[in-house]
Amino acid sequence: MGIDFTVFKGSKTGDIVEAKGHRDPGPSEVIVKISHCGVCGTDEHYRHADQGLGHEGVGIITEAGSSVHDVSEFRVGDRVGMSWFHKFCGYCQSCVSGSHQNQCINSTYFGTADWDQGCFGTAVAWDVSALFKIPDEIASEDAGPLMCGGATVWDPLYGAGVRPGSRVGVIGIGGLGHLAIQFASKMGMEVVVFSSSESKAQRAFEFGASEFHITSEVEKFGSIVKVDVLLITANTLPDLNLYLQVLAPGAKIFPLTVSMESLKLSPLSLIAGCFTVSGSGLAPVASIRAMLAFAAKHGIKPQIERFPMTHDGVTEAMQKLREGKMRYRGVLVAA
Amino acid sequence: MGIDFTVFKGSKTGDIVEAKGHRDPGPSEVIVKISHCGVCGTDEHYRHADQGLGHEGVGIITEAGSSVHDVSEFRVGDRVGMSWFHKFCGYCQSCVSGSHQNQCINSTYFGTADWDQGCFGTAVAWDVSALFKIPDEIASEDAGPLMCGGATVWDPLYGAGVRPGSRVGVIGIGGLGHLAIQFASKMGMEVVVFSSSESKAQRAFEFGASEFHITSEVEKFGSIVKVDVLLITANTLPDLNLYLQVLAPGAKIFPLTVSMESLKLSPLSLIAGCFTVSGSGLAPVASIRAMLAFAAKHGIKPQIERFPMTHDGVTEAMQKLREGKMRYRGVLVAA
Repeated sequence: MGIDFTVFKGSKTGDIVEAKGHRDPGPSEVIVKISHCGVCGTDEHYRHADQGLGHEGVGIITEAGSSVHDVSEFRVGDRVGMSWFHKFCGYCQSCVSGSHQNQCINSTYFGTADWDQGCFGTAVAWDVSALFKIPDEIASEDAGPLMCGGATVWDPLYGAGVRPGSRVGVIGIGGLGHLAIQFASKMGMEVVVFSSSESKAQRAFEFGASEFHITSEVEKFGSIVKVDVLLITANTLPDLNLYLQVLAPGAKIFPLTVSMESLKLSPLSLIAGCFTVSGSGLAPVASIRAMLAFAAKHGIKPQIERFPMTHDGVTEAMQKLREGKMRYRGVLVAA
Repeated sequence: MGIDFTVFKGSKTGDIVEAKGHRDPGPSEVIVKISHCGVCGTDEHYRHADQGLGHEGVGIITEAGSSVHDVSEFRVGDRVGMSWFHKFCGYCQSCVSGSHQNQCINSTYFGTADWDQGCFGTAVAWDVSALFKIPDEIASEDAGPLMCGGATVWDPLYGAGVRPGSRVGVIGIGGLGHLAIQFASKMGMEVVVFSSSESKAQRAFEFGASEFHITSEVEKFGSIVKVDVLLITANTLPDLNLYLQVLAPGAKIFPLTVSMESLKLSPLSLIAGCFTVSGSGLAPVASIRAMLAFAAKHGIKPQIERFPMTHDGVTEAMQKLREGKMRYRGVLVAA
C-alpha cells in the first residue's frame, strides 16, 4: 500500500513550501497519519533548509512494515507520538552503549537524513524505535508539544540527579518554561521563576511556581535562597554571571534553548561554585516514556494555540513563535 | 604550649613577605610542624594579597587541642597532609548535606579566613577536619603536590562517573597534567594527551599516555578516536571549539586550571553533543582519602623540583612556576 503524503518544508528564502511524496513502510517502519504536530523553536533553525519540518508529531498508525509485529508492540490503530531525534541506527557506539544521553551518529538528526518528510504534513513512514505510545489521559493536541519541548525540560529533572525538594530555577516562561514549571512543581520541587515580564507572574504561580523574580534592569538580585538547578528556557541567552549569586554550591545549569552565542562563563566561576553546565539535547527513550506517564498521571499539559495544518497555518504559527508572541506552544491540527 | 611560627605571605606589590606569629591550638585543632609544601598555581592568585600562602602542606602533628582525641583519630606524631579547602564549619548546608562537591560557605577558603598562617611556613594550627593521614608508601615531598594538584585531577576521574576503559583527553602536561596522565593510566583508561610541545611526547608516554597529539598550529585534528572525558590542565585556556570534533557524545569537560577567561562555548555546541562542562574545584574528603590510597598502591607520584622553605626559595619557586618552567611541580622543603 504505502501512502501519498503532503509535507511542509523549509526553503532557501525561508518561505514554507508544500510538497508531495510517497512512502512505503520499511520492514521496521509504520505509516502514521498525522493528526497534530507541535511547533518548536528548533523548526525555525531549519526554515531556510530544503527539508521537511515538524518533529513533535502525533497520529494514528495506519500500516505496519513486515517486521513491525516481531520487533515491537506497535499495531495498526495505535495512537503514537514521534520523536524526530530517536530514529536510531541501533548499531553505532551510542546506540549499543545505552548511555543516558544517547546520540546516534547515524540518526535522522545527524546524518543519513530522511529530510523529504516531516510531521508538518499528512503522514510519515517512521521507524518504530522512534515511536511512543500516547497514554489515554493525554489529548493528541497536548501530546505534540510534550514530544520535544516536554522531553527537553523533563530530562534534566529526571535524569541528572536532581533530588526531591531541590530548588529549581527556571529562566523564561515560554513554550519550554511553562512546562518546566509544571513538571518540577509536580515532582515536589520548589520552582523559582526568573522572568523579564512582570505580567507573567500570575500565570507562573498558576503553573506551579513558588517564587517569581523579575530580571529586567536587575544588576544584582536581592536575597534569594539559592537554587540547585537552573534551567535556561528563555529565547535569548541571559548573562549567567547575574545568576552566579543565586546558585547553590554544585548547582547544575542547563541551557535548554539552542543558541549559538557564547556562554561567557569562566572556569573560575565554575570551579569556585563547583557548577556544571550541561548540554541536554536528547532525552533517552526511557526518559520520554517516563515523562509521558508522569504527565498523564499528574495532568500536566501544555497551554496551546491551534493552527490549521496548512501552508498558511504553518507560516502563521512559525511567525508567531519567531516574534515571541506564542502563548505558550503552537500546535498544528490536521484538517 | 602553642607554637611560634614563620609564614610567607603575599603582599600588594607581589613580593613575598616573611612574617611571624603565634598560635595555640583550638579544641579541634592540632599544631602541624611543616616539613614540605607543594607550590600550586593557586598560590599565584593570592600573591598580591596580604595572606599566608601554601595549601599543599605536609608535616608532623606536634600538639593536639583538647577535643582532638574525642573527635578524630589523629594523634601527636602522625604524618599528615593539609587541605586548605577542607576546613569545614560542619554546620552549613554544604557540610551537613554531605554532597559530593562539598563547599562550606564558612570555610577558610570562602569566608572566615585564617589568612595569617599558611603552609609556606614552619607550622600551622589546623582543624582535624582538613587533615589527611599520609600512607607510608608516599614520601612527604611527594605527598605535598598530591594534596591539591593530585586531588584536582583525581576527583573528576573518581567521582564524575568516568568508567573503566574510557578515553581520557588531557590538555597540557604540567603540574596537573603529568599527575592526570598517571592516575588515568593506572585506572585502566586510555590517556590521550594534547600538548603544544612536541618535546614532551616522550615524558607523556612514560607517565602512561596512550596517544600524543600536537596542538600548536592545528586548526583541525586528523582522525582521533573520540574521548569521553577532557581534562583541561594547560596554563592558558585553549579554544574548546577545536576539541569539539574529538569529543564523544555525552563527553564531560573539566576546566581544571583556574582561569577568568570566558569558555566561549555555545549552548548549541553543548546540546548537539550532550556535552557537560563541570567546575570541579573541591574534592570531597572521601575522594582525597581514596586518592592517597590509590597513589600509594600504584606508586603514583609527582615529578618535583625542590626549593628551600625560605624567603628566597618561595620567591624562586613561584617565579619559575609563573614562567612556565617548572618540571613538573615545585616543593618547598623545610630547612
